[in-house]
Amino acid sequence: MIKGKQSLSFTRTPYIVSSGCVAGSKEAKGPLGKKIDLINQDDLFGAKTWEAAESEMQKEACIVALGKAHLEPSEVRYLYGGDLLRQGIATTMGIEALQIPMFGLYGACSTSGEALALSAMAVAAGYGSYMLAVTSSHFGSAEKEFRFPLGYANQRPLCAQWTVTGSGAFLVGTERGYLSDEGEQRNSHVKITGITVGKIVDYGLKDSQNMGACMAPAAADTIQQNFEDFGRDAGDYDYIFTGDLGQIGQSILLDIMENRGYSLQDKHQDCGLIIYRRIKQDVHAGGSGCGCAAVTLSSYILPKIAKGEWRRVLFVPTGALMSTVSYNEGDSVPGIAHGIVLEHC
Amino acid sequence: MIKGKQSLSFTRTPYIVSSGCVAGSKEAKGPLGKKIDLINQDDLFGAKTWEAAESEMQKEACIVALGKAHLEPSEVRYLYGGDLLRQGIATTMGIEALQIPMFGLYGACSTSGEALALSAMAVAAGYGSYMLAVTSSHFGSAEKEFRFPLGYANQRPLCAQWTVTGSGAFLVGTERGYLSDEGEQRNSHVKITGITVGKIVDYGLKDSQNMGACMAPAAADTIQQNFEDFGRDAGDYDYIFTGDLGQIGQSILLDIMENRGYSLQDKHQDCGLIIYRRIKQDVHAGGSGCGCAAVTLSSYILPKIAKGEWRRVLFVPTGALMSTVSYNEGDSVPGIAHGIVLEHC
Repeated sequence: MIKGKQSLSFTRTPYIVSSGCVAGSKEAKGPLGKKIDLINQDDLFGAKTWEAAESEMQKEACIVALGKAHLEPSEVRYLYGGDLLRQGIATTMGIEALQIPMFGLYGACSTSGEALALSAMAVAAGYGSYMLAVTSSHFGSAEKEFRFPLGYANQRPLCAQWTVTGSGAFLVGTERGYLSDEGEQRNSHVKITGITVGKIVDYGLKDSQNMGACMAPAAADTIQQNFEDFGRDAGDYDYIFTGDLGQIGQSILLDIMENRGYSLQDKHQDCGLIIYRRIKQDVHAGGSGCGCAAVTLSSYILPKIAKGEWRRVLFVPTGALMSTVSYNEGDSVPGIAHGIVLEHC
Repeated sequence: MIKGKQSLSFTRTPYIVSSGCVAGSKEAKGPLGKKIDLINQDDLFGAKTWEAAESEMQKEACIVALGKAHLEPSEVRYLYGGDLLRQGIATTMGIEALQIPMFGLYGACSTSGEALALSAMAVAAGYGSYMLAVTSSHFGSAEKEFRFPLGYANQRPLCAQWTVTGSGAFLVGTERGYLSDEGEQRNSHVKITGITVGKIVDYGLKDSQNMGACMAPAAADTIQQNFEDFGRDAGDYDYIFTGDLGQIGQSILLDIMENRGYSLQDKHQDCGLIIYRRIKQDVHAGGSGCGCAAVTLSSYILPKIAKGEWRRVLFVPTGALMSTVSYNEGDSVPGIAHGIVLEHC
């Protein structure tokens, strides 16, 4: 079970039984647009505020994931969820209607990894047949929370990233499959074989608009720790996906890893560089937010693993730990990253 | 393992090996003052801002808990921590120096219950010998976060509660004891035998200054669910401690439970009514905050269980789920409560 310093490997391996993802208009125009389960063109999802829209997305993502597996919310033992907003209100107001006992999380943009890790730990321990991991972010609510309300039309530096309007929910379970409406057995083909829980890594950077740079050292530490704990290197993975380092963070990650003797050149991809057409969609350094890694995992990575195109993937969502208060008081922006080992089965 | 709808009972029972708590000047003058491990009289703990002071408290509480058990931070497998501030920065900046792989949590004032539940789940599953659960709150940072900066000297309604300046850390482990400096075996006498994970409960209340009323229905639901899941009633516990319902919340809780056929009159205590002398210290309806239940548990409840004065206690920290954005946008203030069953051993 316990692997090395920070990791766990699971003997009763949990499956990702199903997943659902929901996103907005800009994501719909990106490379993953057609693969996303549910799109809303006005980014409000029937709500009146950005925050309520984000809540709506979380609920919808959960309902889609549950629907695919033909499960009711009451069949889920515990929900692990979080978002970027102060006091996690997108999650609170979003999943309230599902009435699933819940653990609220905060790990900035690493939260999808945190939620998957805790869900897998609970399923592998026999604490329930199904757990739900859900995260979200919304461009409108995130700009208001961390920077300026959209109405200000402020200019963003080129190192800034574009917060994904989206949510992803993942049903983690002991059972490999479920019966479809037609009575057919549908099997999950993705299992979570291990996790590497991240530490807070602080290189002292203070530029809250350059989050890729702030998070890259944490991603490097978690990836290296995963290699050490499991006795692996980059060659043992088809791909290593970070959450939202963007272009600047990616180049820093590759440099750090190169200096430590690991070449990730052909193995590394970043969800923030997959979800948008970076130049054409004018997202500066790339996508970001709790929804970035979650939507990319649900719509792009899991289907590839399920088909067997990729046999083993390391999924490493990355978070920049800060608030308007912390950076205005002069604190640096530390990072954290959690690693999830996903395998075809 | 699985008990009823929302609970778990542990076969490999985790122990609370040690705990540490830190608080400020007002708490020092309260009934628990002399029982608190570490007091700082200017409430700044050597820092320059309320937020940094809160971080300092979290770090100190962890160090005290680890010190009592003669453990280094590196011997702790995972840390589960949270606070009330936006994006959990008190935790991030506080526990960074310990370099323990961590899960950031948000459950408002229920977070100490959430952290203890997840720590117990991880220890009982064999995911590591020691987990650390830590939470904090600070009157200065909480007023600034949720209401007004202290310099405004705004008036508070009588139903308002006073946020505790304090932090509590709990070392949860598989091992019952440790060797003291003198080479003596010291045993823990408190074990976590079960948990009841809370749901979000929303009675539609919108008064963010009356948090006791907002949280009481959630406390009632979790207590009742605990009774049902474990086949118990109030008579099976020496005491049931809620986190910070205060005077108004307590009377609502007792009413709700009475209406449901449970009398908690002689069994219920509230940490928010224990930590201060309510009238004399002018805290209006009582204490509150992530630190309230944590400091009371560490300094008052655990020692009584350890001595065997109480054999079985239900500890139910309660949280009011809201932010300045959610209540300014007209949302109600739902509550959540997690139950932890603590037994003498």
